[in-house]
Amino acid sequence: MEAKKKLYGAVDSPSTMRALASLLEHQVEFEFTLIDLEAGEHKKEVFLSLSPFGEIPVFQDGDLTLFESRTIMRYISHAYAVPGKDHIFEEPNLQGIVAGWIDIEDHQFDPPASRLLHEILHKPSIGLSTDVAVVVEEEAKLAKVLDVYEERLGKRKFLGGNKFTSADLTHLPNLHLLTRTRVKELFETRPCVYAWCTGIMSRPAWTKVVDLIERSKSQA
Amino acid sequence: MEAKKKLYGAVDSPSTMRALASLLEHQVEFEFTLIDLEAGEHKKEVFLSLSPFGEIPVFQDGDLTLFESRTIMRYISHAYAVPGKDHIFEEPNLQGIVAGWIDIEDHQFDPPASRLLHEILHKPSIGLSTDVAVVVEEEAKLAKVLDVYEERLGKRKFLGGNKFTSADLTHLPNLHLLTRTRVKELFETRPCVYAWCTGIMSRPAWTKVVDLIERSKSQA
Ligand SMILES: N[C@@H](CCC(=O)N[C@@H](CS)C(=O)NCC(=O)O)C(=O)O
Ligand SMILES: N[C@@H](CCC(=O)N[C@@H](CS)C(=O)NCC(=O)O)C(=O)O
Repeated sequence: MEAKKKLYGAVDSPSTMRALASLLEHQVEFEFTLIDLEAGEHKKEVFLSLSPFGEIPVFQDGDLTLFESRTIMRYISHAYAVPGKDHIFEEPNLQGIVAGWIDIEDHQFDPPASRLLHEILHKPSIGLSTDVAVVVEEEAKLAKVLDVYEERLGKRKFLGGNKFTSADLTHLPNLHLLTRTRVKELFETRPCVYAWCTGIMSRPAWTKVVDLIERSKSQA
Repeated sequence: MEAKKKLYGAVDSPSTMRALASLLEHQVEFEFTLIDLEAGEHKKEVFLSLSPFGEIPVFQDGDLTLFESRTIMRYISHAYAVPGKDHIFEEPNLQGIVAGWIDIEDHQFDPPASRLLHEILHKPSIGLSTDVAVVVEEEAKLAKVLDVYEERLGKRKFLGGNKFTSADLTHLPNLHLLTRTRVKELFETRPCVYAWCTGIMSRPAWTKVVDLIERSKSQA
């Protein structure tokens, strides 16, 4: 009997979407438990015993409990890779390159992306108005980051090389959300970035994540 | 003939210290090239061709060029681990746990630590005064994070389990700098954290990093 796998998270949470994408991409079966952030469920004792910093997502695989979405992704792509096929951990060089672009997503891409989503989507949803000056400033930062991506993706199909890896996957939640806003233009005006972005967003595993999120939202 | 290994960095840079610690811990031989941040060397064409975001450290191993200090550390601990001994990448569970604590260092520990170092060390060094309100606020955040560490280190010797790994190593630069300031008290008052912290700071590889940094400073 296989050990039980469980993901705790929320719809509308980019970090949860990252973990979901990795699970579905590797065809891992799991139970998805929704955590109600508005009700403060993530700050209650029972959840804190799983995730001591009170953040989602959390992934359980038998006795192993992991938090931090990029960690969950790194673990899934290690434990559930197909040997000889998509197993980046068999090759230190490839692992290094992939880890590098995950760290870049985390330190260069995600900060302006998250601030843009906060201004453009989150604030209006709770009755606050978007600060246009912040949007302009963060768009300029993201544009500079995307210039580096354009250069890289001009030379290879995916960030890690010729195969889709976690280096690409980690960008999906923010790409999905940003390309539904005015920020889409920053992607459309960079042909290699745009081809990459539309390509990875149309992967079957990602469309399943989007479906699952939409379904969970309508049930919530 | 072995491929040439080169680290580009600066003394006084916590990220460079993290890469140095990993190299020395794994007894990797390399050439260390100082980049003069004050002279803006990291924003010049020749450096940007290595590190497109203009940040140090950068590590070259033959044809492979890596940036982001935690990535360099992940690569070193993969490529230069002793099989069967300290090779976390042989075990997906252990890799997941170690990756988790590296991500926690990055997202929970480093932000207050960096802001404290900026206020207490960096600002006075360039003639600005420390903002005490910020210090108090960031100390409170770091204290909460260290409470989680105290709990974890009460049950095992190192963050990843019973062996020293990159999960511990990644904390060394900030621990070294913070324990020379008033923030030391936050560590001293947590016995398991303090035993861990003094233990890992006295590892031979780390004392070599400290020596190398001091020597480079006096030559600069
Ligand atoms: N670095 C973490 C960030 C996790 C995170 O910020 N999660 C948000 C939802 S997307 C959360 O738990 N927010 C609740 C809170 O922090 O109070 C990861 O990648 O998993
Ligand atoms: N996330 C990066 C941060 C690197 C970083 O911020 N490096 C600093 C020195 S510690 C730097 O290059 N500063 C120059 C600049 O950004 O202009 C890493 O861990 O390597």
